[in-house]
Amino acid sequence: MPGSESSRIGKWSEQEVLERIEAIRRRAPRLRDEAITTSHGAGGRATHTLIEALFRPAFGNPGGDAALAALDGRTLAVTTDSYVVSPLFFPGGDIGELAVNGTVNDLAVAGARPLYVTAGFILEEGLPVETLRRVVESMARAANRAEVQLVAGDTKVVPRGKADQLFVNTTGVGLVTDPGRLGASRVRPGDAVLVSGTVGDHGTAIMIARGDLELETDLVSDTAPLSELCAALLEAGEVHLMRDATRGGVATVLNELAVEAQVAVAIREESIPVRDEVRGAAEILGIDPMYMANEGKLVAVVAAADAGAALEAMRSHPLGREAAIIGEVRAEPPGMVFIHTAFGGSRVVDMLIGDPLPRIC
Amino acid sequence: MPGSESSRIGKWSEQEVLERIEAIRRRAPRLRDEAITTSHGAGGRATHTLIEALFRPAFGNPGGDAALAALDGRTLAVTTDSYVVSPLFFPGGDIGELAVNGTVNDLAVAGARPLYVTAGFILEEGLPVETLRRVVESMARAANRAEVQLVAGDTKVVPRGKADQLFVNTTGVGLVTDPGRLGASRVRPGDAVLVSGTVGDHGTAIMIARGDLELETDLVSDTAPLSELCAALLEAGEVHLMRDATRGGVATVLNELAVEAQVAVAIREESIPVRDEVRGAAEILGIDPMYMANEGKLVAVVAAADAGAALEAMRSHPLGREAAIIGEVRAEPPGMVFIHTAFGGSRVVDMLIGDPLPRIC
Repeated sequence: MPGSESSRIGKWSEQEVLERIEAIRRRAPRLRDEAITTSHGAGGRATHTLIEALFRPAFGNPGGDAALAALDGRTLAVTTDSYVVSPLFFPGGDIGELAVNGTVNDLAVAGARPLYVTAGFILEEGLPVETLRRVVESMARAANRAEVQLVAGDTKVVPRGKADQLFVNTTGVGLVTDPGRLGASRVRPGDAVLVSGTVGDHGTAIMIARGDLELETDLVSDTAPLSELCAALLEAGEVHLMRDATRGGVATVLNELAVEAQVAVAIREESIPVRDEVRGAAEILGIDPMYMANEGKLVAVVAAADAGAALEAMRSHPLGREAAIIGEVRAEPPGMVFIHTAFGGSRVVDMLIGDPLPRIC
Repeated sequence: MPGSESSRIGKWSEQEVLERIEAIRRRAPRLRDEAITTSHGAGGRATHTLIEALFRPAFGNPGGDAALAALDGRTLAVTTDSYVVSPLFFPGGDIGELAVNGTVNDLAVAGARPLYVTAGFILEEGLPVETLRRVVESMARAANRAEVQLVAGDTKVVPRGKADQLFVNTTGVGLVTDPGRLGASRVRPGDAVLVSGTVGDHGTAIMIARGDLELETDLVSDTAPLSELCAALLEAGEVHLMRDATRGGVATVLNELAVEAQVAVAIREESIPVRDEVRGAAEILGIDPMYMANEGKLVAVVAAADAGAALEAMRSHPLGREAAIIGEVRAEPPGMVFIHTAFGGSRVVDMLIGDPLPRIC
């Protein structure tokens, strides 16, 4: 990827690019919708707009990532997520395991050691107690695996038809020992962009479990706790940022980091690890695997000099065997993600628009 | 209340009482139900059974109260609650204010200084954005009033008919400076039992807001942050335990403390502060105000010598003006709550059975 491309991205002229960025920026903080749609929960553009226009003015740090919070001379990471995945049980996992791992991962990519997780259930009247028991036991196993403690719980019940079986919120608290180490402000042009493994496994596994695709595959969700992998990565070199690529996929994470760090991200399409089953499903659905949800994959931005060591550290861990360097950070145009295809072309990768795969987490 | 009553409670012989206790104990840890009912979310007996039979074996501290958690030499209090109240807006408050205050109160009664609150929304597709905005702004105001910071957020959207407008989970983190000070193990026979004000206001306000009762009153929910009141109480003397009396009301809190501390609690009915409107609604509904939910009231167990000072401290605070000493802790029979009526009789006060007032929080 020659540096001259920073002033010309494939078929886009610099002027076109700048106009596009301006359009994106104008769009971001306005919430024109009068009613909530599933897009607002999909993690992409509409979620981002909702956060910027409605939550940020009222709350401090309203994003999906862990917030850092001072406590009597210590730094906590705190994160919250509700899970509404359908079906509750799917190849490779279930809502309980997903909820614990998801919260553990939000803490881990913030550079925290995950310690405590709470569980808040909303149950629909008539839910079989056996279903709840399976979910609760799965959460206990996931907590044990991730070495976190489930410390507080709550159960509410709503009448039939007022919820869909079982929703669960998990909120996590972790300890951050080096609060200044990671962050969008640490990202520099020239940094390498890595992904810890194949993309789109979780989203595809959920679609297959629903029977929306008439496919029979052995594909399973990648739900897993990433805390060990994060710790190994942090030991390997100068890591500037880590993000778990859940709703909205790798594409949305890259867009968020490009906007927050005011950098461009250039990705090489052929370097992105994608399973054949996921590629096949993606073609049927017409969705780029880069937008598909993962539940055990992270994106890391690493100083160029340490990219090799970081890749090696990830590949040495069972959850990072298929890790890859997928691109690099550039100075211009800020806020933009573009992808170089195997055929020599380039295209802009925007945030996820709409909600092509609802209720995947 | 003469001490001789510890061997005879009104019309109950000691033998009858012991048999009853045995029956309650046998019942507690078994979960015979095959399906979830609204009772499991009501905070009473069924919730208790669900916790003991299903959550406790899998989780550490699964109760509704704040858990204490060690963090690098500090002690955190952590608590989680989901809110499914219907209607979303009611006289005296709304779901957002309720959620922030409820979480603040769980931390405050655990002796913690509430610091951080997270917000996890589950929205039904089609919810007016304006409704969400009102709730979010109400949460921001409540957080400001309670001097806590809203630090992390999450939004999920489910299709129409898969939720009821808006549910929100709030999880709170606070700092505990004296972890050994409060707890069921500190409760002693002879301790005084206090309540911080009138009971049943919230539950009644919700029922009236739903139009279930054809009453027109000025009654409003008592939703309020109790952290200042708790701090004042802790300064006033030897407080052994504080609990906020939410779902299941004061009766359920007293039963929980009787079981946990293995003591009896004797209450004088005429000393319980109840508003006329609440008493009227309670008669129509056939529900004792002692079982009705409060969202700004606490029960405190205080060393007898400091009961007067504690009462004075509460009455000096705007949220405790109608505080009262309502009874005392006794040694026998352990696990039992009984009430002395104005007519000289006594009756056993069990935990809430069933769910007479669903979705009040």
